[in-house]
Amino acid sequence: VSGYALPHGIYPYLVSPVRRDGTVDEAAIERLVGDLIAAGVNGVTPLGSTGEIVYLTPAQRRTIVAATLRAAAGRVPVVPGVAAFATTDAVDQAREFAAMGVDGLVVMRQNAFPASEQGAIEFFAETARAVDVPIILYTNPTLLGSDFSIDALTALTAEPNIRYIKDATGDTGRILTLVNRFGDRMQVFSASAHIPAFVFMLGGVGWMAGPACVVPQAAAELYRRVTSGDTAGALALQRPLWSINECFRKYPLAACIKAALQLRGYEVGDPVHPQRALNAKEREEVAAALADADRALAPA
Amino acid sequence: VSGYALPHGIYPYLVSPVRRDGTVDEAAIERLVGDLIAAGVNGVTPLGSTGEIVYLTPAQRRTIVAATLRAAAGRVPVVPGVAAFATTDAVDQAREFAAMGVDGLVVMRQNAFPASEQGAIEFFAETARAVDVPIILYTNPTLLGSDFSIDALTALTAEPNIRYIKDATGDTGRILTLVNRFGDRMQVFSASAHIPAFVFMLGGVGWMAGPACVVPQAAAELYRRVTSGDTAGALALQRPLWSINECFRKYPLAACIKAALQLRGYEVGDPVHPQRALNAKEREEVAAALADADRALAPA
Amino acid sequence: VSGYALPHGIYPYLVSPVRRDGTVDEAAIERLVGDLIAAGVNGVTPLGSTGEIVYLTPAQRRTIVAATLRAAAGRVPVVPGVAAFATTDAVDQAREFAAMGVDGLVVMRQNAFPASEQGAIEFFAETARAVDVPIILYTNPTLLGSDFSIDALTALTAEPNIRYIKDATGDTGRILTLVNRFGDRMQVFSASAHIPAFVFMLGGVGWMAGPACVVPQAAAELYRRVTSGDTAGALALQRPLWSINECFRKYPLAACIKAALQLRGYEVGDPVHPQRALNAKEREEVAAALADADRALAPA
Amino acid sequence: VSGYALPHGIYPYLVSPVRRDGTVDEAAIERLVGDLIAAGVNGVTPLGSTGEIVYLTPAQRRTIVAATLRAAAGRVPVVPGVAAFATTDAVDQAREFAAMGVDGLVVMRQNAFPASEQGAIEFFAETARAVDVPIILYTNPTLLGSDFSIDALTALTAEPNIRYIKDATGDTGRILTLVNRFGDRMQVFSASAHIPAFVFMLGGVGWMAGPACVVPQAAAELYRRVTSGDTAGALALQRPLWSINECFRKYPLAACIKAALQLRGYEVGDPVHPQRALNAKEREEVAAALADADRALAPA
Repeated sequence: VSGYALPHGIYPYLVSPVRRDGTVDEAAIERLVGDLIAAGVNGVTPLGSTGEIVYLTPAQRRTIVAATLRAAAGRVPVVPGVAAFATTDAVDQAREFAAMGVDGLVVMRQNAFPASEQGAIEFFAETARAVDVPIILYTNPTLLGSDFSIDALTALTAEPNIRYIKDATGDTGRILTLVNRFGDRMQVFSASAHIPAFVFMLGGVGWMAGPACVVPQAAAELYRRVTSGDTAGALALQRPLWSINECFRKYPLAACIKAALQLRGYEVGDPVHPQRALNAKEREEVAAALADADRALAPA
Repeated sequence: VSGYALPHGIYPYLVSPVRRDGTVDEAAIERLVGDLIAAGVNGVTPLGSTGEIVYLTPAQRRTIVAATLRAAAGRVPVVPGVAAFATTDAVDQAREFAAMGVDGLVVMRQNAFPASEQGAIEFFAETARAVDVPIILYTNPTLLGSDFSIDALTALTAEPNIRYIKDATGDTGRILTLVNRFGDRMQVFSASAHIPAFVFMLGGVGWMAGPACVVPQAAAELYRRVTSGDTAGALALQRPLWSINECFRKYPLAACIKAALQLRGYEVGDPVHPQRALNAKEREEVAAALADADRALAPA
Repeated sequence: VSGYALPHGIYPYLVSPVRRDGTVDEAAIERLVGDLIAAGVNGVTPLGSTGEIVYLTPAQRRTIVAATLRAAAGRVPVVPGVAAFATTDAVDQAREFAAMGVDGLVVMRQNAFPASEQGAIEFFAETARAVDVPIILYTNPTLLGSDFSIDALTALTAEPNIRYIKDATGDTGRILTLVNRFGDRMQVFSASAHIPAFVFMLGGVGWMAGPACVVPQAAAELYRRVTSGDTAGALALQRPLWSINECFRKYPLAACIKAALQLRGYEVGDPVHPQRALNAKEREEVAAALADADRALAPA
Repeated sequence: VSGYALPHGIYPYLVSPVRRDGTVDEAAIERLVGDLIAAGVNGVTPLGSTGEIVYLTPAQRRTIVAATLRAAAGRVPVVPGVAAFATTDAVDQAREFAAMGVDGLVVMRQNAFPASEQGAIEFFAETARAVDVPIILYTNPTLLGSDFSIDALTALTAEPNIRYIKDATGDTGRILTLVNRFGDRMQVFSASAHIPAFVFMLGGVGWMAGPACVVPQAAAELYRRVTSGDTAGALALQRPLWSINECFRKYPLAACIKAALQLRGYEVGDPVHPQRALNAKEREEVAAALADADRALAPA
């Protein structure tokens, strides 16, 4: 297996602090990224689903990637998302971010009308060929309205830099299918819909998700315990950590992570209008889940 | 009831002729618009669902609206679509098109994460307030992932230029509900999912849909027969015309209209990649439906 | 076109008055059927969706059909529903009801696991062959989890007693497709999801639905106006009548018709447990819709 | 924690061998049950989803439970399914099976029209109160059209014999939520949609699913490895075993298990008509998956 590797581990999906008038709060991004790196994350991913990518204009996306790169300053890889309906649009976005110096790309295909299987393969293959960084395929049928067939994934292994798939289906059995089928050739990152400890046990190479933004130390420790063979310790941490995911499954994802970060003292604002922000009662639930997670990691 | 009126009748949803490299074939738009006006349509709508709006970048959308305005040359209103996830994005698109001189706007809200009811109302209200042309709300839960409640529509009647709703739900009973509830204050355009003769009988003010691109004379005649009280004549024309809609319900919309226009001699190309084009057998079905429609209008 | 014909017109879907302990209130059925016949309906249909057929045991179904036959006493046809997952079960139900003397059957296929197209055809064909009465196919993808393809319907025209299809999809365009395709060979009854006036205009032969239970005179008058060519009069009646359907679309069907009949003075009880009954506020909406409908029919 | 306990471990969901004419092949049931007990399963469950319960008449269900009880002869618990739309029907089924001597019941609520939350709780509570055996709640939104809220489950812990929930959602995170919330009070059985090793690691008390019919020894060994703390060994067995589940996710469940049992030499027939049986190519896939599973267990 050749190059195009990314460090394994924890990649928080960053929120996108966009003000009501559409301007981006770059300082909020820089502070958050700096703190996450200090907390030990292995990379950062702006413009994911948590980052409300589909709500952002080309100019907003560009500003956010630039701020993230500035803040990371080469200490950890920056792996932003690319989301497009049209193939030429995805190619252009990928080229632009690559020129800015990103270390990898998470590529999402938005879908409104049916694509042919061959067209869908070309969408990802042409985007991958346009750049010289590792590509992470992203699958989230609920958000994007499409999924990969095993045949399509097999065809995409012809592109040397397509190395990873981030599975946001919530179907852990699907991950076992991918690991059995592709082994090291197409490695799996867990999304927030899964129990990450189990994805790691199946050979998943990391957790790339919004919740990692708000519990970065716990996420890193969870990953460490599974990869060092401490299954019992991992499960003991995973059980209380699950409260965080329960919130994120119950309430809109971006609204929830932004509320949690506000509770952590980050001024990241509300989700991009017209999405709804969490109300006071929902914020209390998020606060309780954060407290559970913090206790889980505290020394006895 | 004040101004902000559009002429009633037939508004073809224009296709977007985009080449594989992402450039727009402006000449193809100009020829099609000219021919539709000559055939008697009452207005033209670029950037609708048939126009693959969500697949197009801001630059492509701008080019298409400019070409349509040039071709229409003030002879009929040009009423393009605006589609956005974020409120500020919709406002910016609307302002830009208004500055270019359009005569009205069809506004679509794309949806990925839940909006509050209030947020959804503000999305449309702020977009309407940003311009001084009539606004047509567009509802298509399948394509856009959201719909209007009756309460939201009632709130939106506070905006004087929100005058119309284009219903693409396929639920004709819903249109009767709207007509009973809003009367002249919020008038209804039919989409291709309905039997247009029935929408006209209920008081709908026109047909705004892709099929009107390929059978403009028949569409205009159908509208004329219903509005002149010739119910039997309208149904006699509607019955064979329905073959066209059956194709468009069976196959992907934009692919189907583009295939039909190619059969009519327009070089409008394939749907934006990675959408799939119709295959040879499917094109034969479209050709048969066109022949049915043409025979329906032919003098005995 | 041969025999197996049913009178055209209004066939109310009867409710099933089942007490909390599972016993059937036969007197309530008899009174309702008598009054509907007096109001001029053309037939009655126990055990439809409004009749909560899937909630009823074989013994309850038998009791309800017997009571309906007793009450109708040959004055109008009794056309009960048959609903089953398994082919042999449908055949047995059909035979039993035929032996009891029913005049036709509405046949529904419940679906949990995928059937082959051929299997689905056989389900209906074997049920039809088991009896010597007209068969009405019932299509309601939401309730039953399956639909008919045009090919399947074509194959089913090989059975001489399969003469009708009751379409509960709410997709009026689908009815136009059926009428264009099958003409007199497979005639269409409208369900409550459609605007019945339009189904009649398309050539539909009647209205077979729960709402006809609560506004039988208005339904009969609507049918009379369309079939006598009074389109304007039909639409003038259809518009206010639609309030009834709006209730039935907004609230659970059987709960809604049972509430409406209670308001009309029929002691038909609540929907079969554990379905929920309408609350007080919802009953007020139903009462208002009934008042609208009654006014629509009142002499000026 | 009081009584109403069932032995933990492997409970194969039995198939229902029903001939095309609707008669039950009792000998086939008896042979299968005998062999499964010899292979070391901890209980048997006729009339589950794999058992096509919703396709079976009351008489067929009774015959199948009687045959299973005869074959088990008290060696392992017999825990049949009860499936009904109406509360009184579920109560009657439960009473009848309890009188026949079953050791527990899996209770399913079928859903067509909305139930109130309180009605849904009463459905299960009244069924539980009607008998004196342990009750397993079954949740499968896809098959049954409804699910349990956490509040409903909490209310149902008031019934002392409601002791278990069988989760067929495929959402393993939901199981972690249940285990965190209910601990020993409401224990979880895994369905085939999950990776059973992970359900066991989370504290799930067994695997109750169709695939356990065709790989009973491997299922028992998997359960033994997890419960004895051999995580690595469990995962090493789970990985190749997953091929079986992949088949069952790809093809209709009952058709797939019946095909696999035919390949194992059991004459269990096709799924109940009009379901479709697997074709030759699909049977080859099942055969390959069985071979994978058998190799996984074979001594090196």
